[in-house]
Amino acid sequence: MAVYTEITDDDLGGLMAQYDIGDVMSCKGIAEGVENSNFLLRTGKGQYFLTLYEKRVKEEDLPFFLGLMDHLALKGVRCPVPIRGRDGVILRRVAGRPAAIVSFVDGVSVRAPGVDHCAQLGRALAGLHDAGADFAMRRANALSVAGWRPLVEACLGNADRVRPGLSEELSAELALLEELWPRGLPEGVIHADLFPDNVHFLGGKLSGLIDFYFACNDFLAYDLAVCLNSWCFEADGAYNLTKGRALLRDYAAVRALNSGEIAAFPLLCRGAAFRFLMTRLYDWLNQVPGALVKPKDPLEYWRKLGFHRAAKGPAAYGLD
Amino acid sequence: MAVYTEITDDDLGGLMAQYDIGDVMSCKGIAEGVENSNFLLRTGKGQYFLTLYEKRVKEEDLPFFLGLMDHLALKGVRCPVPIRGRDGVILRRVAGRPAAIVSFVDGVSVRAPGVDHCAQLGRALAGLHDAGADFAMRRANALSVAGWRPLVEACLGNADRVRPGLSEELSAELALLEELWPRGLPEGVIHADLFPDNVHFLGGKLSGLIDFYFACNDFLAYDLAVCLNSWCFEADGAYNLTKGRALLRDYAAVRALNSGEIAAFPLLCRGAAFRFLMTRLYDWLNQVPGALVKPKDPLEYWRKLGFHRAAKGPAAYGLD
Repeated sequence: MAVYTEITDDDLGGLMAQYDIGDVMSCKGIAEGVENSNFLLRTGKGQYFLTLYEKRVKEEDLPFFLGLMDHLALKGVRCPVPIRGRDGVILRRVAGRPAAIVSFVDGVSVRAPGVDHCAQLGRALAGLHDAGADFAMRRANALSVAGWRPLVEACLGNADRVRPGLSEELSAELALLEELWPRGLPEGVIHADLFPDNVHFLGGKLSGLIDFYFACNDFLAYDLAVCLNSWCFEADGAYNLTKGRALLRDYAAVRALNSGEIAAFPLLCRGAAFRFLMTRLYDWLNQVPGALVKPKDPLEYWRKLGFHRAAKGPAAYGLD
Repeated sequence: MAVYTEITDDDLGGLMAQYDIGDVMSCKGIAEGVENSNFLLRTGKGQYFLTLYEKRVKEEDLPFFLGLMDHLALKGVRCPVPIRGRDGVILRRVAGRPAAIVSFVDGVSVRAPGVDHCAQLGRALAGLHDAGADFAMRRANALSVAGWRPLVEACLGNADRVRPGLSEELSAELALLEELWPRGLPEGVIHADLFPDNVHFLGGKLSGLIDFYFACNDFLAYDLAVCLNSWCFEADGAYNLTKGRALLRDYAAVRALNSGEIAAFPLLCRGAAFRFLMTRLYDWLNQVPGALVKPKDPLEYWRKLGFHRAAKGPAAYGLD
């Protein structure tokens, strides 16, 4: 829960003088995003998002994230559009932090997505992958298979507190993923964190994708696996085949999956579940006492991982 | 820092169906107000504030607060206007909490108010007092002189950790305030917490007063004393006589102070400084380890209290 940096009226006045987006009507700190300080900014010309980037986002990655949103928006993807100042500059400094203004994406996120939401997500994700194909910058995925071992090692000593025997199971799972992780699948720019809270709907229609601060280059089908994990399981832990089929079918209607991607899909799902299990476990074991941000339950992803481990091939997901 | 309760899309859909204020374009949790969960809600018809009232606000006080805003808005005071549903109801329940939607007050608060801001505040405060004169409901000020002794007693054992000798000085100050606290001054509805963050300006003009959740009945001039404490001191602790004069003169241009109020003003300022010193000290001594909300420095009000204790009558404030 955010707003780590407060912005004064003087900071705001100085910033706005560099833009041509009208006078400030209101500016309110937003209680979301643990990574940055976010402000909802309304001017005579519309609604914007002002972000001050805090320590957890590396400053050298900002040109990638902002350049990507700029690129995607030009290609017609509905996402936050970075706003240029009168000098043409997107990224500047406010209150000692790197800062940028982007357009606000209307809509609200859905807590419990239905089949149609999943279908719309599939098309939007494939559209994102197509639009990103000619984006010139690159950023490695720090949270792909090569990044998992340090996370596992940092958790081993305490993982059994969360679930007896978990340490041993994590080590075995990691070894298997490292050994079997696919190679040579189609790559490109992925969102990498397209959970339901990062997708807006307006009147039942997908109105935009937000929060590109985990975007990177990786297997495109891995992004789809992240979505399947976060959109197509029920609260009781069961995989919803109807939602999964809708996601996969509508994705493939825009960008067809090749045979290698289909064959690797169960393993990509397994890896995606492992990635969120590990970051949640790390945050769970390293929480600040008394902080308002309650860490998310890591075992939700342990249960999803269990489904993937048991899945007998792509057909278990509705892929054939 | 807020949003203690999350609101789902279903909660929001169910709530909005009871209103005639258009479809939801966005709904974002706001990172301000430690008392409640606040959401900035934008619809096709405008911008609103949705508040879910948490434990620190007594549910039985809500009709007073919401009724007061409704009353003041009808009298032309620029403040949040409670929105009635199609059934005429303002206060309802969302996610198990009492909840209400009010209009959004455009503008931003100023961090370092200037002389003209203080003058505008004076007029707005007097306008608020005039408009509240015929409001029929009453709410006692739980944080006036009768409420200070329990606060002091709760802090005595630890106050010296904040400043050596503070316990003894607080006891002496409390005894003096209890003995000399004025009687018979003009009373009415006061805001009671009209700090700079609760006043919005737009293009240099005061655009509205917000956050009426400490409003109550008390001496009108005490409200002015709260404002003088929070608007007319510099960061170095010095009283700014020019700002004080501007506040007092413009207040009196709308509602004249009588001789009793003028004579009692130094003591009212002393009491107002003591009230904020004590609540800040209490929060400082009872902070939750690791919480994101950093308590405010109680000694800021100790220093202001020192000015008031040394003040030689109303002329020290620019009142004559």
